[in-house]
Amino acid sequence: MTDASITSQPVQLLHTGPDGNTCVKDDVVAREEPMEIRVEGRSVAVVMRTPGHDEDLAAGFLVSEGVIARPTDLLEVSQCPSTGNQHGNVVDVLLGKAVENWDSLTRNVFSTSSCGLCGKATLESIFQRFPTLPSQGWKVPRQLISTLPSTLRAAQSTFNSTGGLHACGLFDLEGRLILAREDVGRHNALDKILGWAVRRDLLPLQNHLLLLSGRVSFEMMQKALAGGISLVAAISAPSSLAVEMAQKSGQTLIGFLRGSSMNLYTHPERVRDCPE
Amino acid sequence: MTDASITSQPVQLLHTGPDGNTCVKDDVVAREEPMEIRVEGRSVAVVMRTPGHDEDLAAGFLVSEGVIARPTDLLEVSQCPSTGNQHGNVVDVLLGKAVENWDSLTRNVFSTSSCGLCGKATLESIFQRFPTLPSQGWKVPRQLISTLPSTLRAAQSTFNSTGGLHACGLFDLEGRLILAREDVGRHNALDKILGWAVRRDLLPLQNHLLLLSGRVSFEMMQKALAGGISLVAAISAPSSLAVEMAQKSGQTLIGFLRGSSMNLYTHPERVRDCPE
Repeated sequence: MTDASITSQPVQLLHTGPDGNTCVKDDVVAREEPMEIRVEGRSVAVVMRTPGHDEDLAAGFLVSEGVIARPTDLLEVSQCPSTGNQHGNVVDVLLGKAVENWDSLTRNVFSTSSCGLCGKATLESIFQRFPTLPSQGWKVPRQLISTLPSTLRAAQSTFNSTGGLHACGLFDLEGRLILAREDVGRHNALDKILGWAVRRDLLPLQNHLLLLSGRVSFEMMQKALAGGISLVAAISAPSSLAVEMAQKSGQTLIGFLRGSSMNLYTHPERVRDCPE
Repeated sequence: MTDASITSQPVQLLHTGPDGNTCVKDDVVAREEPMEIRVEGRSVAVVMRTPGHDEDLAAGFLVSEGVIARPTDLLEVSQCPSTGNQHGNVVDVLLGKAVENWDSLTRNVFSTSSCGLCGKATLESIFQRFPTLPSQGWKVPRQLISTLPSTLRAAQSTFNSTGGLHACGLFDLEGRLILAREDVGRHNALDKILGWAVRRDLLPLQNHLLLLSGRVSFEMMQKALAGGISLVAAISAPSSLAVEMAQKSGQTLIGFLRGSSMNLYTHPERVRDCPE
């Protein structure tokens, strides 16, 4: 995990306790800084992120965008050290391939010519870029899934005292934590995992489980699909489009994972002890 | 508040309880759908949002971007009803003024020519668009601030059974709830409030308090500043850049507002019973 001095920042505040007494207190907050992602020198995005693992974040962002999928797609990832810029807030990526669609990469806006924008069209555009996931033949016990949150929390507690970070954990099929990442932006935490994986030639992550500390949006399921992750569990609630996406992509989606309790929304065939 | 049939969607899932028993359960999840915001027919953004108050969302997005600030800036806000598009997922805005910078509006990417991107530069660019907030001369009692979360929760509980929505509440200086909005995206919930306000000629909201159900990022403080809101309180943690922004913008920022407890990070002069 990243050094706490990079991910958090000291602040002084006035704390009022339950007894109504107020005192000056030294505390820490989660660090948030802008980072610009460039491809071949061209700016493609500015993300508000917690510093640390920035090269992985840039690489993972490009995995999520469908631009890269293997180490040979990446010629070089370099972080700009700059005057007056402590955290190296520009990362430039040189690709080992041509960019097919600069427009969609730099604009982050769907180009629709009619009023046809809807959840269905959005999902279809995703499936044009990323294949849906067939059953890989494995099953994990429901009891193993219940252990994931405490494992992730144990990894977090060493450095997150800010209460302001989202966490993502990548696990193997035995429930062992492979990688944990935290960030003020939940999508950044997942992109950092995807970037770590693509730079080590580990994509697709088909024999892995993903745990999210918070809620599950459509975008998080899309990123998991870009990484080939077929089981996503979360402590909190999924959105309607996350559930629809998981159903159609072949992903198993679990929400409200708390103690032994959980809600299994889609594709129960990867979970043992559940009707199929 | 919005009808629950618009903001949530029924799902069927497998629920495993604390006792380990699994059963089929009918539940609801928060609805998430893409919405395209157009200005003069040109696509400027696609946001993933919970349907409802979509015209306010489009207007509020443009307040946050610094494009509009008063009702006369808005000639017309129209939602496209379309074949196969149940929720009217395109909103087109006709302006009563010229757009000064189409590039920054449509690209959502800072154009930096050097490696100078950092939190400081980001804040400076914000303050070029929105004035900082002087003290308005009012003070609210700390005890009044403590009542805001339960007031907002009472307004929420009538329709949010999904656990998947972020809430924003706008209050007057007596702690009365003026408007509450919920959305899968926390920035959307706040934009819906800003859009509601600009269309009623209520900006700047200088004699109002804002309560956020979750964490406070830089972007949320920026939106509050765009609306002229000088006191922001949140149930959860702020980020480092949110605190820096509040300090420099003149905004009072309160976090971890739970029961009588709270952390007051910046500008305590608006809160009574606190040293100034």
